Amino acid sequence: MLTAWRSAFLVLASLFFLPSTPQTPPADPKAEILAFNEKFINAHLRMDNPAIIAMWAEDGVSLLPSMAPLAGRAAIGKFINDISAQMPGYKIVREKIDFHDIRVSGDWASEWGIETQGLQPPNQPSMEGYGKILFVLHKDSSGQWKIQHEMWNASPKP
Amino acid sequence: MLTAWRSAFLVLASLFFLPSTPQTPPADPKAEILAFNEKFINAHLRMDNPAIIAMWAEDGVSLLPSMAPLAGRAAIGKFINDISAQMPGYKIVREKIDFHDIRVSGDWASEWGIETQGLQPPNQPSMEGYGKILFVLHKDSSGQWKIQHEMWNASPKP
Repeated sequence: MLTAWRSAFLVLASLFFLPSTPQTPPADPKAEILAFNEKFINAHLRMDNPAIIAMWAEDGVSLLPSMAPLAGRAAIGKFINDISAQMPGYKIVREKIDFHDIRVSGDWASEWGIETQGLQPPNQPSMEGYGKILFVLHKDSSGQWKIQHEMWNASPKP
Repeated sequence: MLTAWRSAFLVLASLFFLPSTPQTPPADPKAEILAFNEKFINAHLRMDNPAIIAMWAEDGVSLLPSMAPLAGRAAIGKFINDISAQMPGYKIVREKIDFHDIRVSGDWASEWGIETQGLQPPNQPSMEGYGKILFVLHKDSSGQWKIQHEMWNASPKP
């Protein structure tokens, strides 16, 4: 029973000596994911590869069509930079992702989206691409949501 | 301070009146997901559509290549049954999925896998298909893990 009394005492003590300074307001995980999504879309519109790569978890995995899994931020970053190097002068002129079903449980979250991307090649008409994306996100030790798993496949024109 | 005393009293009361009967052992979520995976693979090997469909959440979403999202168990079930009806006499002779990165947080889980499927058409040589799968799973109110979101795309031959 010593343990029980000790616990009760600690609870009492903690209740009597509540700090009078205001507490940090609780995080709103859904708002955090919405902000993450906006940051992801804007980084693509700016074609800001370092910003996109920084949104990945160190041990994230990207699952893209007709490719083996890309495992780790380094491999994913190299892939993103290689694609950009192979498409000099191309501009992403439109990036729209309608995200659905944001689910958060502790430090883990998931959501899926329908993507429309407008791509402008140099001296050619612009092209539209349609796809779907599924994200598993993880909040890292610094409190930032990162992409843990990403998968993408093509969609018909909506 | 009434609230503080009341809380302390309740804590004390709960500590003094701990039940003496043994508690249910804690569930091992990873073992549950491994069992889920085995059930999923075996249902495919048996081509048991009702069993596959029953593994979906009522409001699950399937994200398949070159298709709009299939939303809800009813729509997903219809798609699975339609595919089977269009392939009379075909047999799934091999179904292998190497799952990776099982992550569980409360009632939510995710994992991805590399799939090889052997399909035997009637009176023709068998074919092998290669793909990747990403699952978001949710434990429903009955304690069963269900597919909340599924995405798939093709892989090169490993």
